[in-house]
Amino acid sequence: MKTKIDINCDLGEGFGNFKIGHDAEIMPFITSANIACGFHAGDPVAMSQTVELAKRNGVAVGAHPGFPDLMGFGRRYMNLSREEARDIIIYQTGALKAFANAADIGLQHVKPHGALYNAAAESEVFANAVIEAVCAVDSKFVLFALANSRMAEMGAEAGLRVACEVFADRAYNSDGSLVSRNVVGGVIEDAKLVAERAVLMAKEREVIAVDGQTVTFDDLHTICVHGDTLNAVEIAKCTKEALLGAGIGVVPVGTFV
Amino acid sequence: MKTKIDINCDLGEGFGNFKIGHDAEIMPFITSANIACGFHAGDPVAMSQTVELAKRNGVAVGAHPGFPDLMGFGRRYMNLSREEARDIIIYQTGALKAFANAADIGLQHVKPHGALYNAAAESEVFANAVIEAVCAVDSKFVLFALANSRMAEMGAEAGLRVACEVFADRAYNSDGSLVSRNVVGGVIEDAKLVAERAVLMAKEREVIAVDGQTVTFDDLHTICVHGDTLNAVEIAKCTKEALLGAGIGVVPVGTFV
Amino acid sequence: MKTKIDINCDLGEGFGNFKIGHDAEIMPFITSANIACGFHAGDPVAMSQTVELAKRNGVAVGAHPGFPDLMGFGRRYMNLSREEARDIIIYQTGALKAFANAADIGLQHVKPHGALYNAAAESEVFANAVIEAVCAVDSKFVLFALANSRMAEMGAEAGLRVACEVFADRAYNSDGSLVSRNVVGGVIEDAKLVAERAVLMAKEREVIAVDGQTVTFDDLHTICVHGDTLNAVEIAKCTKEALLGAGIGVVPVGTFV
Amino acid sequence: MKTKIDINCDLGEGFGNFKIGHDAEIMPFITSANIACGFHAGDPVAMSQTVELAKRNGVAVGAHPGFPDLMGFGRRYMNLSREEARDIIIYQTGALKAFANAADIGLQHVKPHGALYNAAAESEVFANAVIEAVCAVDSKFVLFALANSRMAEMGAEAGLRVACEVFADRAYNSDGSLVSRNVVGGVIEDAKLVAERAVLMAKEREVIAVDGQTVTFDDLHTICVHGDTLNAVEIAKCTKEALLGAGIGVVPVGTFV
Repeated sequence: MKTKIDINCDLGEGFGNFKIGHDAEIMPFITSANIACGFHAGDPVAMSQTVELAKRNGVAVGAHPGFPDLMGFGRRYMNLSREEARDIIIYQTGALKAFANAADIGLQHVKPHGALYNAAAESEVFANAVIEAVCAVDSKFVLFALANSRMAEMGAEAGLRVACEVFADRAYNSDGSLVSRNVVGGVIEDAKLVAERAVLMAKEREVIAVDGQTVTFDDLHTICVHGDTLNAVEIAKCTKEALLGAGIGVVPVGTFV
Repeated sequence: MKTKIDINCDLGEGFGNFKIGHDAEIMPFITSANIACGFHAGDPVAMSQTVELAKRNGVAVGAHPGFPDLMGFGRRYMNLSREEARDIIIYQTGALKAFANAADIGLQHVKPHGALYNAAAESEVFANAVIEAVCAVDSKFVLFALANSRMAEMGAEAGLRVACEVFADRAYNSDGSLVSRNVVGGVIEDAKLVAERAVLMAKEREVIAVDGQTVTFDDLHTICVHGDTLNAVEIAKCTKEALLGAGIGVVPVGTFV
Repeated sequence: MKTKIDINCDLGEGFGNFKIGHDAEIMPFITSANIACGFHAGDPVAMSQTVELAKRNGVAVGAHPGFPDLMGFGRRYMNLSREEARDIIIYQTGALKAFANAADIGLQHVKPHGALYNAAAESEVFANAVIEAVCAVDSKFVLFALANSRMAEMGAEAGLRVACEVFADRAYNSDGSLVSRNVVGGVIEDAKLVAERAVLMAKEREVIAVDGQTVTFDDLHTICVHGDTLNAVEIAKCTKEALLGAGIGVVPVGTFV
Repeated sequence: MKTKIDINCDLGEGFGNFKIGHDAEIMPFITSANIACGFHAGDPVAMSQTVELAKRNGVAVGAHPGFPDLMGFGRRYMNLSREEARDIIIYQTGALKAFANAADIGLQHVKPHGALYNAAAESEVFANAVIEAVCAVDSKFVLFALANSRMAEMGAEAGLRVACEVFADRAYNSDGSLVSRNVVGGVIEDAKLVAERAVLMAKEREVIAVDGQTVTFDDLHTICVHGDTLNAVEIAKCTKEALLGAGIGVVPVGTFV
């Protein structure tokens, strides 16, 4: 059977008059859109428009809930209780689901954003909060989880469909964790290099860490590319073409997990 | 056939550490709860808890979306475009629907809050925004509209189930509009008087306006009592008992419109 | 005596991760910066950095308070009471003043933003709120007011130093009001044309309205150029050069009103 | 010389329509009011009214800045950078200072709120952020710091006037830290007991910890009583009377540190 992979990207990350990213340009090169839900970015009009844009491009949509921290773009850890974390995810996912239903496409997945994503990968309290929230809204949704994380296992144990995620444009430590985006070299901007890494990831379930060691992924279904870097469109385009060129099927993750 | 009426109340109007209202005490005396959705009041944890509380009391739940103005409790008019108004209603309704689904009860209705409610009663732009939003999320929801308002007609024309609403604890002008809550006598606090008005409204579809004239309602399905006044619980209790005593069925509006 | 004029621009209008405008590039061509104060745009870090940037460029700073409506960028009218309007202006002005004091430059002026600016030009309630707020924080601040507006008179009557403001890059109606920015031609983007208008305004206190009539300004001290349009920097540069070329002194308004 | 002590209380902690606390009732029994500044609680109108109320009662006012987390009432840790923490404190302090100046009373002190207070007591990064912010706004302000904390030393080293603070209505661990308010017994509600503890603190600079050991404070200038508990007014009244009865002077901390 042909290897299949999903390319996902964070989109709809403006807010009101603040526009960021290259959503329209990047859509043709991805298969899943993680749409901001209003807490770290994204307002109702932006959510509506981004869902419509995804629909026109045949891109599956997912909720991208974050901490209630617009000022910090959801990138600052907040010490929420499990109940608080669960309920902000239900809230945001429900809001986006309404726009997806209004556009007659339905929601494919849930991917926590920024510091909430990291908290879920590192803490069972947050991982449980995410899993409970997804089960509460719709247990058929696909849960995005960092490949090799405990949360990926926990999601599967809870009966959810889990998409194990890797980041083609982020450097890895040898333990499989991501190098901070604040470290020089933490974000990879060379489109060709990102594309090569994506192919290696998809074909071999491997990535070369910053210390030269090989990280092997237990499972791997979706590759994240960023939408807000200067050459985001080029990176997405190169990545998709390289994957197709390597004989890999590039399709929404909901079709194969 | 026995006359039926619904008693609705705005609930879940705290926010984080800020608690207001007497939600638990008032639940036994109402049949529909309008739950704040986070923009004028209500946070995700409060929404979740209020939905659960309603479920335990057999009270139907509805979304109570407001202007994005927590500081003004949604009581200050904001000059939103039709698209902006529609999308904030879809957003908030979707968020509450997720909690209702999580509690396995589903959403019964949508009732705009405060200045958004008034804008929808007075302006076709806002009325259309509300109607479009309800249709977008689920056209089987009941739309709450001020009795005798153009919006009530417009909702019906759009194919929605409409609950025509009256306010037993608010004074009326002879043209059927509400006396401002800032006017002395605008809010009626005598529980017996409120209950009497409710019975007259339910039986005769009438209310006596401040100038002594009789206002007749074209249609009337739900009576609003307030949850945040000092004797809110007493008012709700008296109102329900008086209606039952008058041989009127007090049931959720979704069962009979 | 040489004619003097001030060039002002709205700056610091990002929020957290959202960056907009060309603040660093535009600073050399203006003399007064209106800095967003957190309600419609601007966060504490942005405010601090924009004040420092202005200081390095010898640009005077002013508070640019707006309605509490980040989602609408302060461009949507909100029905605030006089007390509410006054207090949000005191709050925002005080916050910016703290950053100006921290940078050892002090605050020069207060200019309401967007819909609050328009409300103050059109309504005595809002005009009074603005004037009371400025008097409350520091009655030596310069108040920016639309040239020919009642608020300009009211500010002077209250004993404030008033800077009468015109917009070189906005079309005028023959009654002296601005053509809406949503109307085609409402915003003028041709840098040369903007510069010509600025010179006519500064030298003759006149502008040609959209219907060909001449609007004469009673008084005129500061010209606004926008910082968020595509060619904002070019417009500011052309405007300053044209004014200097016409023998007009371009200096902060606080030095001559 | 007569021993002097200050009694401080967090006030103005409502937000818009949400009212909490017993501000008017408690004012006669305290000497310093920590007024919420809009981020965790407090809106501009509330700030203005609370400053006026303090003025009428001869109570000194201070800024009570918190994390930007209204939903969590500033009680949830947020991972801000030193620059971000400093700038949110400058912002909030400047805003409150404007209201204090408008009321012709000036600001006496700055006391961080909730999780920000705890972060400053535990982390040099946050302690430095607070100290830098106070120095930036006005280095004559009194800085409130947990008695025996490193931050109290750091503030003094930076040349600030420091008020060492103890909590009469909170249980202490034997290392001088506070028992969490979530632990049973963490908050003491018996007014007589609180008053006795306050007297012991003021006279002997001591408190008995939960394990029976005696905690000795290096320095101690202000005792915090809470304003939002059920019997807050009684506690404040008893505490003030007991201190006066023990021959201790109860005066604003700015008069003696």
